[in-house]
Amino acid sequence: MSTFGKVFRVTTYGESHCKSVGCIVDGCPPGMQLQEADIQVQLSRRRPGQSKLTTPRNEKDLVKIQSGTEFGVTLGTPIGMLVANEDQRPNDYSDMTNYPRPSHADFTYLEKYSVKASSGGGRSSARETIGRVAAGSIAEKYLKEAYGVEIVAFVSAVGDVSIDRDPSNPEFHNLLNTITREQVDAAVPVRCPVESAAKDMIALVEKYKAEQDSIGGVVTCVIRNAPSGLGEPVFDKLEAELAHAMLSIPATKGFEIGSGFSGIKIPGSQHNDPFYKDETTGKFRTRTNNSGGVQGGITNGENIYFSVAFKPPATISQPQETASYDGKDGVLAAKGRHDPNVVPRAVPIVESMASLVLMDALMLQLARSASRERLPKLNGSA
Amino acid sequence: MSTFGKVFRVTTYGESHCKSVGCIVDGCPPGMQLQEADIQVQLSRRRPGQSKLTTPRNEKDLVKIQSGTEFGVTLGTPIGMLVANEDQRPNDYSDMTNYPRPSHADFTYLEKYSVKASSGGGRSSARETIGRVAAGSIAEKYLKEAYGVEIVAFVSAVGDVSIDRDPSNPEFHNLLNTITREQVDAAVPVRCPVESAAKDMIALVEKYKAEQDSIGGVVTCVIRNAPSGLGEPVFDKLEAELAHAMLSIPATKGFEIGSGFSGIKIPGSQHNDPFYKDETTGKFRTRTNNSGGVQGGITNGENIYFSVAFKPPATISQPQETASYDGKDGVLAAKGRHDPNVVPRAVPIVESMASLVLMDALMLQLARSASRERLPKLNGSA
Amino acid sequence: MSTFGKVFRVTTYGESHCKSVGCIVDGCPPGMQLQEADIQVQLSRRRPGQSKLTTPRNEKDLVKIQSGTEFGVTLGTPIGMLVANEDQRPNDYSDMTNYPRPSHADFTYLEKYSVKASSGGGRSSARETIGRVAAGSIAEKYLKEAYGVEIVAFVSAVGDVSIDRDPSNPEFHNLLNTITREQVDAAVPVRCPVESAAKDMIALVEKYKAEQDSIGGVVTCVIRNAPSGLGEPVFDKLEAELAHAMLSIPATKGFEIGSGFSGIKIPGSQHNDPFYKDETTGKFRTRTNNSGGVQGGITNGENIYFSVAFKPPATISQPQETASYDGKDGVLAAKGRHDPNVVPRAVPIVESMASLVLMDALMLQLARSASRERLPKLNGSA
Amino acid sequence: MSTFGKVFRVTTYGESHCKSVGCIVDGCPPGMQLQEADIQVQLSRRRPGQSKLTTPRNEKDLVKIQSGTEFGVTLGTPIGMLVANEDQRPNDYSDMTNYPRPSHADFTYLEKYSVKASSGGGRSSARETIGRVAAGSIAEKYLKEAYGVEIVAFVSAVGDVSIDRDPSNPEFHNLLNTITREQVDAAVPVRCPVESAAKDMIALVEKYKAEQDSIGGVVTCVIRNAPSGLGEPVFDKLEAELAHAMLSIPATKGFEIGSGFSGIKIPGSQHNDPFYKDETTGKFRTRTNNSGGVQGGITNGENIYFSVAFKPPATISQPQETASYDGKDGVLAAKGRHDPNVVPRAVPIVESMASLVLMDALMLQLARSASRERLPKLNGSA
Repeated sequence: MSTFGKVFRVTTYGESHCKSVGCIVDGCPPGMQLQEADIQVQLSRRRPGQSKLTTPRNEKDLVKIQSGTEFGVTLGTPIGMLVANEDQRPNDYSDMTNYPRPSHADFTYLEKYSVKASSGGGRSSARETIGRVAAGSIAEKYLKEAYGVEIVAFVSAVGDVSIDRDPSNPEFHNLLNTITREQVDAAVPVRCPVESAAKDMIALVEKYKAEQDSIGGVVTCVIRNAPSGLGEPVFDKLEAELAHAMLSIPATKGFEIGSGFSGIKIPGSQHNDPFYKDETTGKFRTRTNNSGGVQGGITNGENIYFSVAFKPPATISQPQETASYDGKDGVLAAKGRHDPNVVPRAVPIVESMASLVLMDALMLQLARSASRERLPKLNGSA
Repeated sequence: MSTFGKVFRVTTYGESHCKSVGCIVDGCPPGMQLQEADIQVQLSRRRPGQSKLTTPRNEKDLVKIQSGTEFGVTLGTPIGMLVANEDQRPNDYSDMTNYPRPSHADFTYLEKYSVKASSGGGRSSARETIGRVAAGSIAEKYLKEAYGVEIVAFVSAVGDVSIDRDPSNPEFHNLLNTITREQVDAAVPVRCPVESAAKDMIALVEKYKAEQDSIGGVVTCVIRNAPSGLGEPVFDKLEAELAHAMLSIPATKGFEIGSGFSGIKIPGSQHNDPFYKDETTGKFRTRTNNSGGVQGGITNGENIYFSVAFKPPATISQPQETASYDGKDGVLAAKGRHDPNVVPRAVPIVESMASLVLMDALMLQLARSASRERLPKLNGSA
Repeated sequence: MSTFGKVFRVTTYGESHCKSVGCIVDGCPPGMQLQEADIQVQLSRRRPGQSKLTTPRNEKDLVKIQSGTEFGVTLGTPIGMLVANEDQRPNDYSDMTNYPRPSHADFTYLEKYSVKASSGGGRSSARETIGRVAAGSIAEKYLKEAYGVEIVAFVSAVGDVSIDRDPSNPEFHNLLNTITREQVDAAVPVRCPVESAAKDMIALVEKYKAEQDSIGGVVTCVIRNAPSGLGEPVFDKLEAELAHAMLSIPATKGFEIGSGFSGIKIPGSQHNDPFYKDETTGKFRTRTNNSGGVQGGITNGENIYFSVAFKPPATISQPQETASYDGKDGVLAAKGRHDPNVVPRAVPIVESMASLVLMDALMLQLARSASRERLPKLNGSA
Repeated sequence: MSTFGKVFRVTTYGESHCKSVGCIVDGCPPGMQLQEADIQVQLSRRRPGQSKLTTPRNEKDLVKIQSGTEFGVTLGTPIGMLVANEDQRPNDYSDMTNYPRPSHADFTYLEKYSVKASSGGGRSSARETIGRVAAGSIAEKYLKEAYGVEIVAFVSAVGDVSIDRDPSNPEFHNLLNTITREQVDAAVPVRCPVESAAKDMIALVEKYKAEQDSIGGVVTCVIRNAPSGLGEPVFDKLEAELAHAMLSIPATKGFEIGSGFSGIKIPGSQHNDPFYKDETTGKFRTRTNNSGGVQGGITNGENIYFSVAFKPPATISQPQETASYDGKDGVLAAKGRHDPNVVPRAVPIVESMASLVLMDALMLQLARSASRERLPKLNGSA
């Protein structure tokens, strides 16, 4: 379905060649200052054409708020938003390629809908993510203003070049504690804030570009200052919602939180995060954070951090042997030049989806905590 | 929330020390043969006490169908099911430990609910998974009877012992093509069907047991014969729902589908799965399967395979330094002997959650395809 | 579907001849005192066999809480509840009547599910309402303890005997302001608190009983002390949710709120409810209440009142000419003696569904108001 | 919330003074011919300014499809639609009236959101219904093309002038069997197809107009050719969903289906609808239709008919005594001339909401029936 969230909800529409892409954000708290400029920042960060490592098309992607605000303040009613598509001409069927593109969604969309759209797998286009980023920007603004939450994503791996994100590495946690979006964006064009790794990544992407090939990578994201108590036990654990959100981003193949896949090698006695009381704040903290900020599906107040694997872009600038729609083996010709690596552009998308998950979990928890507060006190209890 | 699914829906209840655990399955197709014995098989596979590598408690876990079937056939109405808890005595608060257990859910449940339950993080108990497995068994029976779907999970790693699940390894795909539950269960007690790895895993678990420690692992799962066209574009991609389902299982820290995290290192020209037409069946197939059976969030008819990372069990048989509820540093004493590795028991839980995801996606797609079939044919189209 | 509510959610299961009927209540605020006795009160009020005007079967209907509470306090986790069915034997198909009973659900269930259940329209049984009443009792307890909400329903019409519920009648509003459940139950056995009408209703029911026939009626319900601001604009207006809830009760045919169908005859100048400020409480009130406590789908703090029409019971103690399952005209013989009028038993069901609607709307609004409170103040605004 | 439906889903946005109003329709069957002209028909029928009995403003309300179709055919992806607002200037706060308008949503919106919007109760505006009508037009087109469903609503009462809609009146059923939209629209301007009543209604509306007052009415709707088996037992009975949908329309106060409120006076022996087999079609029919086409919440294939009560418009052309926002008694001055009766304009809105309900129920049932068909046959059963 095209709706995400239970209380703070976003519904998106749009594919590559239609009139516009957009979304409706339902359930936004009223009384928050909100202007198009607040939303445009992340939209611009996700645009292609920002550097030589990304695709040369220059989409404008200017968002227009349709409803739900007045005099720059949210009303609490649904916020409609749209971004016009500049290229609105659907391809004529006769011009359409005869091949379902390998590892694209052309074939599966046809299997699902039995309609051959000119865009192939229309909604699987990166352009669809505009609605998510617009919605996520609103969630993020709330989280920051009301709770001081900070959400920062960055590229942690491209191909076989990776920063060390071992959960026992103090430098990695130091990075998670301090990294800012400014630092990420300064690492032009790979958005990897570790200088040595960034340099190698750039070289690697250039190599694949030269070879008319593509390569994937990993985006790591940290959420700082999230309140404790967020996430619903059982099916809607916070990490389950995050995994859902991240695997819904095009081209993703994996998700891990906290110690993740490397955590399987750490014995329980080291993996367990011991508690202590921070005397300054009076809050319980954990001395290590292998849990990644969630325990039993619920936030504990520590940094939430997770990583998302992106496969290499399926569109490459070289011919491919594959079958045509009528079942004959042939060669799909290459057309134009394509982005060999999209993970830098995925950074704001990951941040946006994380914002949506956290915001929805927060509002559900506020319903619970506010309802509990109205009950008469029990004898001898909190 | 405690409900999973949109059309085929399961809602669960229950924690460790209450009267029973159970679930309601809503939306089951009518007219399917179903008896308690169909459900008991997987419930028994998830029970502790099946071997020396697992916990010595012997739960009976006999399921009782309350409603929704008659004369051994589903009516289409909700299927209520429950399993009695043998140990129903909540602990007295005075006996309760003074420590929130590290990397358990005791602390986060208290943060969330502001009620100190005797079971600590009650719903985070493995016992909660009984409802999922009962529900998943029904979904799986339908998928098998109606579509011949086969779902088999197995242990692919424990600690640093792992089978080779590189997507370019033909033996790995051969395993995915052929593995059966009988083979998995024959690999007592680790449920790893690769003999050499299994032997090393057993040795490793014994080592951690001797050290009063614990260790995590990976469960890999394959879904064979899934129809193409399943999964909703955008937010509810099949892999997003699978990731959601898997990360909702207690103790999970990661999920990957198809090439997963290793796919980031494979250039697009190799990662793309070329199409061909299988002349025997008339179906489109892909020559490789780095996609893991999903493209653009929708199944393409190939094997769906994915892996799930489980952290080491947080309950260990050695004392731990940590803070007490009143904020003082101290030592949480060890109590009893505990299971050093739970991944073998997770196998049927992974299978069950996969069944729930696939069944729900299937019913949504049936609504779409059946509605499309009723429309008048378009000129010159399918 | 068998789930009601978005944040405070109930899922029910069970039909006439299965092992038990029950429900899972998900999203209940933690920290509320709750025992089985709290729930049993309303369950007993809905039981048949309470007077000579109702059916002679004496169901025990003792509820057993399975989970979600400890030491008599809610944990915040799902509350499983069940009531055993005493008669659990499904009828053998060979004994089953050959006729789909007129105006029952036997025929439509067969059309929907293509399975002929021994109970005919199994889930359309009044027995299914046990789960709703159990869940509603919990919601109601919260609403009363936390907000002082009072919900009282009563019989306002049977056949052509009716109390005057004209919205311009001050006595009607006086009744709404003061009526208690004790007064309703004292009006044995019709639960109509207006003495003269009650007398006529009893006579009317006796007449239909003697004629082996049945008759319908109206239940009116008032909700006092509901907070203002509840109900979601557009699709989930409070009156829309109430109408949904009420029309989901078996045998209902109509719903009206405030002035209802009689409001169509009142000119706007009289129908509009003028505001005034109550100097004692400082709250805005309306001088009249034709709106029935909701304006634009949102509560305004006045009494919410509505009425629900119940058709005559379809099961009657006389033979009926109708077609058999094989399409032949024939006569469905009468069996046993049946309740000629069920509206008194519907009273606690109406109250329970009203509680569920209000509780869910309240929790959604708490999410909104609590989220708004955390935002920095706007210049020159509240 | 601003979303309606489970499988065929519409989400709307927009209020009076924002840039546009619109909606996203998610879950539409692919492969259906759809153009803006298909949607414009009903949008134009709901427009004000169509006759002297309605408001003089002339909104253009031209819908623009943004996505989800290509070459005039639905893709199966979300259909974004919008209609520009011509008057987009929010009022300045200083110009804003000092009074919450009686029986409008100004007060309750302020209570709910704590933001004073220039439009008062923004989303309670009739303009919000544009999104519903656009979405309903798509649902209706499908229902007609795929199943031959016909949905026709008409005005059955204005003030105390009413047609005879007694369920035992054969002329009423004759009307339900034959009425067309053309006949309804020919009854300018009241949309009441019974000539004598229409004449009296016109006179009545003119009278209230002259008195600067307003008056309500009833819209009755019939759905012909709906398949049997639609509607979910228990909470989501078809009549419950219809009631929900209708009471979500602005200004509605009541709903009744089949015999409705008058059914309470009919003894069961007459109210029950006996079955017979129609030898021509081979289908089961009922000789009477007091049930209104639903039994146990599920359609039985007979005409579904229901009525909706609309209160008099709250905006009247005469001054009103009421309290200002600062709590002082005063007089809200009349401004301009207003529509004394809006029920004719409600006709397409009622039809649209009915379409949405039926379409969603149909798709859910298709999921069920299609899933059942894939199961192996049971011995000795259908």
